[in-house]
Amino acid sequence: MKVIRTIEELRAEIGHRRSTVSGPVGLVPTMGFLHEGHGSLMQRAREMTGTVVLSIFVNPIQFGPGEDFETYPRDEKRDLAVAESKGVDIVFIPEVQEMYPQPIKTKVAVSELTSLLCGASRPGHFDGVTTVVNKLFNIVKPDFAFFGMKDAQQVAVLEQMVRDLNMDVTIVPCPIVREEDGLALSSRNVYLNAEEREQALVLSRSLNVALEQLENGVTATAGEVRRLLTEVISGAPMAKIDYAEVLTFPELMPIDNEARLAETGNDCILALAVRFGKTRLIDNALFQTKEGNPHV
Amino acid sequence: MKVIRTIEELRAEIGHRRSTVSGPVGLVPTMGFLHEGHGSLMQRAREMTGTVVLSIFVNPIQFGPGEDFETYPRDEKRDLAVAESKGVDIVFIPEVQEMYPQPIKTKVAVSELTSLLCGASRPGHFDGVTTVVNKLFNIVKPDFAFFGMKDAQQVAVLEQMVRDLNMDVTIVPCPIVREEDGLALSSRNVYLNAEEREQALVLSRSLNVALEQLENGVTATAGEVRRLLTEVISGAPMAKIDYAEVLTFPELMPIDNEARLAETGNDCILALAVRFGKTRLIDNALFQTKEGNPHV
Repeated sequence: MKVIRTIEELRAEIGHRRSTVSGPVGLVPTMGFLHEGHGSLMQRAREMTGTVVLSIFVNPIQFGPGEDFETYPRDEKRDLAVAESKGVDIVFIPEVQEMYPQPIKTKVAVSELTSLLCGASRPGHFDGVTTVVNKLFNIVKPDFAFFGMKDAQQVAVLEQMVRDLNMDVTIVPCPIVREEDGLALSSRNVYLNAEEREQALVLSRSLNVALEQLENGVTATAGEVRRLLTEVISGAPMAKIDYAEVLTFPELMPIDNEARLAETGNDCILALAVRFGKTRLIDNALFQTKEGNPHV
Repeated sequence: MKVIRTIEELRAEIGHRRSTVSGPVGLVPTMGFLHEGHGSLMQRAREMTGTVVLSIFVNPIQFGPGEDFETYPRDEKRDLAVAESKGVDIVFIPEVQEMYPQPIKTKVAVSELTSLLCGASRPGHFDGVTTVVNKLFNIVKPDFAFFGMKDAQQVAVLEQMVRDLNMDVTIVPCPIVREEDGLALSSRNVYLNAEEREQALVLSRSLNVALEQLENGVTATAGEVRRLLTEVISGAPMAKIDYAEVLTFPELMPIDNEARLAETGNDCILALAVRFGKTRLIDNALFQTKEGNPHV
């Protein structure tokens, strides 16, 4: 496994592998502090491609003022060990100066899809994501890029960017990985104290209850789903709901309270963002009304 | 010469040429109605690359409301003959539907550089340019892309985009091509009636006078250059000045009226936009204070 810190060296190494190693190139973009969610992306990349590139970069321009850019957890040594164990070929781990040698004046922005959910709570966040992922795609030129469905809105936004800009890469969405008790893996879970950690289980629990009720017909309309999610989450006294929404996926179009999800003709996403103390957690589940959704 | 109208076919043909024809791939993006200015770009591309791709696409999203998108001159048959005569290998001439199969939600935008000159007069214009050029770069994946210095601000903006987004392409700026009497070639020159055409010579004349006076020291400061350009242009009664500016190039930073151009430590651009009747013409000249400017 090669650890590379400059764009120039990365390009040379990938060029070299393109001409000597068969199979496509896969990119797993991360902010590091790797967990088994990232692990599943690396594994998927390992299965599908001949060259697996893992990028680790805590991207300043996707953090808002007052967010946790400075304190975002970092552990390079452990990350490199995890990458090695997953069979990664190249770890790209640039400094901020390497990615932004001068203040960046160019922005890649996706509209509409970014105006709600996390986009509403974190203004500018998705512009930072699309811009840095665009840069990484231009540097690595991957055939496949792997993203976790925990960040479902990010997947929808990046798919829109790739389609709109004719980028020659296929986004591969990978399923959410959870702890045994249901908590979705996240690098930010380390921020939680024991009590917050316990109460945070209400996210996955509320999604499960809603999916179950949708499947057995007890719940049917978007309004009922919203009420149910809110009700279950509010059972945890520390939970402060940022949003508990249901939208079409991947279009992220609003659904009227009266509309029955099964009749929208679209797959739907149940999407949550909830604060526990200073930590904001997200989770989601898809309710599939169409066959063969590639996001499941 | 192949004439190709779909992205899929273009990608296949370029892929085929990449593996069978030696030398890099060059792209000359145009809106068609080709003149000798475009001709010089194709020639330069022919000299520098093994595969010359000419794109012809009147890009709707770079025209503002009330601008001339509908009436922009088009002549496909003549354009193909010109391309053939210049040794172009592939002409890519897509319909709007092919480039924008659904309303585009993704925008590539460069700030600062686009807030002045044509960016101020044509809000949204450069976002349309950077977005479509980004798409074309992703489709063609050229090693070199050729642009005329008549659109000097466009060159500066695209260079900024390429650098900021780590796009793996080199922008090759090519010199302005002029009629014998000095009028810079433009597809929009066909809009001019005889009298407007005659008076439009004031653009190049004012630039020549200013450069001459800068060189012999009669004029030195930015304020003097602005006054001089305005004065000469105002000698043409039909001329309505949009701007007559001097800025650093390619940074496009403002220069104080009192500052002497030769002492700014930067190359400078004298940039004009002037209306004659309904037609808006642009022209510019570089005043070089540094050695080896690649834009000259």
